[in-house]
Amino acid sequence: MAVYTDISDEELSELLAGFDIGAPLAFKGIAEGVENSNFLLETEAGRYILTVYERRVKADELPFFLGLMGHLAGRGFPSATPVADRKGQVLQRLRGKPCVIVDFLQGLSVRRPTAAHCREAGEGLAWLHLSAQGFAGRRANDLGQPRWAPLFAGLRKDAEALKPGLSATIDKDLATLALSWPRNLPSGIIHADFFPDNVFFQAGKFAAAIDFYFACDDALAYDIAVCLNAWCFEADGSFNVTSARAFINGYERRRPLSPAEREALPILAHGAAMRFFLTRLNDWGSTPAGALVKPHDPLEYERKLAVHREGLTAGGGLALFPA
Amino acid sequence: MAVYTDISDEELSELLAGFDIGAPLAFKGIAEGVENSNFLLETEAGRYILTVYERRVKADELPFFLGLMGHLAGRGFPSATPVADRKGQVLQRLRGKPCVIVDFLQGLSVRRPTAAHCREAGEGLAWLHLSAQGFAGRRANDLGQPRWAPLFAGLRKDAEALKPGLSATIDKDLATLALSWPRNLPSGIIHADFFPDNVFFQAGKFAAAIDFYFACDDALAYDIAVCLNAWCFEADGSFNVTSARAFINGYERRRPLSPAEREALPILAHGAAMRFFLTRLNDWGSTPAGALVKPHDPLEYERKLAVHREGLTAGGGLALFPA
Repeated sequence: MAVYTDISDEELSELLAGFDIGAPLAFKGIAEGVENSNFLLETEAGRYILTVYERRVKADELPFFLGLMGHLAGRGFPSATPVADRKGQVLQRLRGKPCVIVDFLQGLSVRRPTAAHCREAGEGLAWLHLSAQGFAGRRANDLGQPRWAPLFAGLRKDAEALKPGLSATIDKDLATLALSWPRNLPSGIIHADFFPDNVFFQAGKFAAAIDFYFACDDALAYDIAVCLNAWCFEADGSFNVTSARAFINGYERRRPLSPAEREALPILAHGAAMRFFLTRLNDWGSTPAGALVKPHDPLEYERKLAVHREGLTAGGGLALFPA
Repeated sequence: MAVYTDISDEELSELLAGFDIGAPLAFKGIAEGVENSNFLLETEAGRYILTVYERRVKADELPFFLGLMGHLAGRGFPSATPVADRKGQVLQRLRGKPCVIVDFLQGLSVRRPTAAHCREAGEGLAWLHLSAQGFAGRRANDLGQPRWAPLFAGLRKDAEALKPGLSATIDKDLATLALSWPRNLPSGIIHADFFPDNVFFQAGKFAAAIDFYFACDDALAYDIAVCLNAWCFEADGSFNVTSARAFINGYERRRPLSPAEREALPILAHGAAMRFFLTRLNDWGSTPAGALVKPHDPLEYERKLAVHREGLTAGGGLALFPA
């Protein structure tokens, strides 16, 4: 929710001079995206979003992300198409920072998804997975299971500060996850951050997905697991199994899960909760008091971890599939 | 540059249910406006800006501002038209705050106005003055000349902290302004904040004016004086008389100035610099260190005050009108 880079009318005109999309008609910074600055850009040719990448995006990975977005859009999946300049270049520079112009997407994200939204989002995720097939780019998941233990090694003090005794619990979780982490599941390009604020709806239907800057290669079912945490928990911390079943049901409209994938979902969801707990704990500890952007509360994911831990102990998993 | 109020999809749907502008297609917070939160709203019927008024706007003055905007738009002046709901109501409420939906305006503001921009802006200001004629609303200028001395009484320490010895200089300025402030100039509704960021251009031509929340009754030439300070100073603090003449020339394309108005411009510009110096000094002193919104530097207007003071001393005024 920020605009970190201020673009003047002159800088904008200079940028657009390289494109075939006409003169600018409107230009407004928008409160979207945490890792970059976004602007609504209207020109004689249509509406676009100009994204300026800030420090946290690795410039050498941008061709992967933009290539993926182009590939998805080319396959008919509703993601923002990067616009090329007259030389065929997509990646541009403004004020020494990399930037890109993409098509404007209609749709609204939802704050409190219903089970119906979950079904739609699930179908949208499967559509994304299928549309990504054939994309030549490869990117390892730099926040995947093998990275969690090393990441946590530097965060023990923060965990204890959050909740005394927490670091021993996390250690146990990490050991369980390392031992039983599923291998050899069907894999491909995953979104890896398919949260409600990155998904647009129109009239209750899935309309588009944005923000592909965590996309990587991993187990496709892990992407569903991320969503079970992001879409199917109530504000009071309880797991809404109706929403979870709706999400999976929606997903399977487009891509049925294998028995191995179904079986793996509870442990994948436990792992996905760990991944977001750890990065939130990391951001929490490294954000100075009174900073502009308030980091997400790591306790939200600490509570989700506890739900998955109990599910495992009870042997019942998440009751995702009715017997 | 802020979005202070976060609106959920459900709250938006509830608001739109009272209107005849269809379902929402897109909704994004935009980084515009300091005193309120603004959202780009696209519906089946078109594009709009939703403005949510924050604490600093006096709710009982909103009917004046919205009435003026409606009047101007009705006269063909390019300002945002407030949209009425099915009951004919313009003013709405969201999260207990007043809000309004207005038409979206195309155009871009300029960072560094050229003399050509100044000519266009001057013509736009005269157009605004003429279009406002006949508007029944009245609002006294609560930041007009009689208010400056009382306002400064509470800011002496801040002035000294800014620059030792400054408060005596300001006292002398205030005395001069009180003594020679022109009365009986042609008056009417003025914008009172016609700064470059509140004026949109398209292809170099004046396209629209926004942000009428300082509009009030005062001398029309005082509005020009505000603009001479806001549009015609270089980054190095020098006064660009070519830009100033272009602004006035543009203004006179639509509304020629009387000899009394021309003669009054240097002292009006001195006073206008005082008004913005004082409010910036006030905001500067009352903003806690590390706050989200950085206040404007009062020294910018302290330097403009000095330019006008010297002009007076030299007896030469601003050389606005070639002999």
